[in-house]
Amino acid sequence: MARWEPGARERLVVAAVDLFTEQGYDATTVAQIAERAGVTKSTFFRHFPDKRELLVAGQETLSRLLAEGIAEAPAGTSPLEAVAAGLTRASGAIGPMSKEIAPRLKAAVAASAELRERDALKSVSLAAAMTSALVTRGVPDAIAALAGELGLLAFKRGYTAWSESDREDEFAPYAVAALGELRAATAFLS
Amino acid sequence: MARWEPGARERLVVAAVDLFTEQGYDATTVAQIAERAGVTKSTFFRHFPDKRELLVAGQETLSRLLAEGIAEAPAGTSPLEAVAAGLTRASGAIGPMSKEIAPRLKAAVAASAELRERDALKSVSLAAAMTSALVTRGVPDAIAALAGELGLLAFKRGYTAWSESDREDEFAPYAVAALGELRAATAFLS
Repeated sequence: MARWEPGARERLVVAAVDLFTEQGYDATTVAQIAERAGVTKSTFFRHFPDKRELLVAGQETLSRLLAEGIAEAPAGTSPLEAVAAGLTRASGAIGPMSKEIAPRLKAAVAASAELRERDALKSVSLAAAMTSALVTRGVPDAIAALAGELGLLAFKRGYTAWSESDREDEFAPYAVAALGELRAATAFLS
Repeated sequence: MARWEPGARERLVVAAVDLFTEQGYDATTVAQIAERAGVTKSTFFRHFPDKRELLVAGQETLSRLLAEGIAEAPAGTSPLEAVAAGLTRASGAIGPMSKEIAPRLKAAVAASAELRERDALKSVSLAAAMTSALVTRGVPDAIAALAGELGLLAFKRGYTAWSESDREDEFAPYAVAALGELRAATAFLS
């Protein structure tokens, strides 16, 4: 049973992930998702343009928070410290619902070529948001591109570790720890 | 005028990119692409499952070559040196046609949400191919993930530099130079 009080938007996401797991992405209709969530189809369309966008619902919010955290890091902050600030800021958008649906969402994406494409675009967009925020801070192009990709890897690796953890803690420390691990790994590249 | 002798597959790619530029991706049909290329629709379908796959036609070949180059690098080669070997091997699949269509292909991808998604999946797939080949060599997970992303960035940055160059030279040196630039950038991350 859910340990949080979901609104219509959250119920729609959970219902969709459940239905994708039960009967597959292609076979699931917007009408079925709305019915399972206990809302009307027009409520669905107030929240999402279609069933695909529902699975990357947080992308724009995440991109904005990552960029804001980077932009607002103090002057003189290193690129990776700024990325850590972005990851910490983005953590605010990743709560109990994300954790509850993570394994089923992962399975749904793995099972659908269409969702894999959309998920890949989400990844590329998050890295681009971080890179662009770093360039705005005056970080040179190649360093910003690299730090943006490290940020994305840290986000993904931290997300996996956090969603698989039994503890009910925040996402931020997992992402920041993953970033630290990647930073250490740079010493073993060449 | 083309300075190379294209076969049906290459003519189909060029015709598609021309039509996407002239009238947009959504408005272009397989029948139009085949007609422009001077082949039948069944010839089209012998080469590509649909118009979208046509634009990422080289993905599987590139992934295979990147992985082979990494796998066959001598024992004791560092992760980034192995990635450089992969980029050099993949260069064999990137010739004059790639250069000729690069600007229009880039514009077509930028103009279509559907193509941006497919292109993002291509990026994610190329990085995954390199990471996986490095893990198979015994490179630890975090280092392999990082080196795979550096390889992808080097591929993309090298590709842009190569396709915008006026000289008629090979792709490999551009990708290897971009990888060197990114390697140097790692010193300025933290």
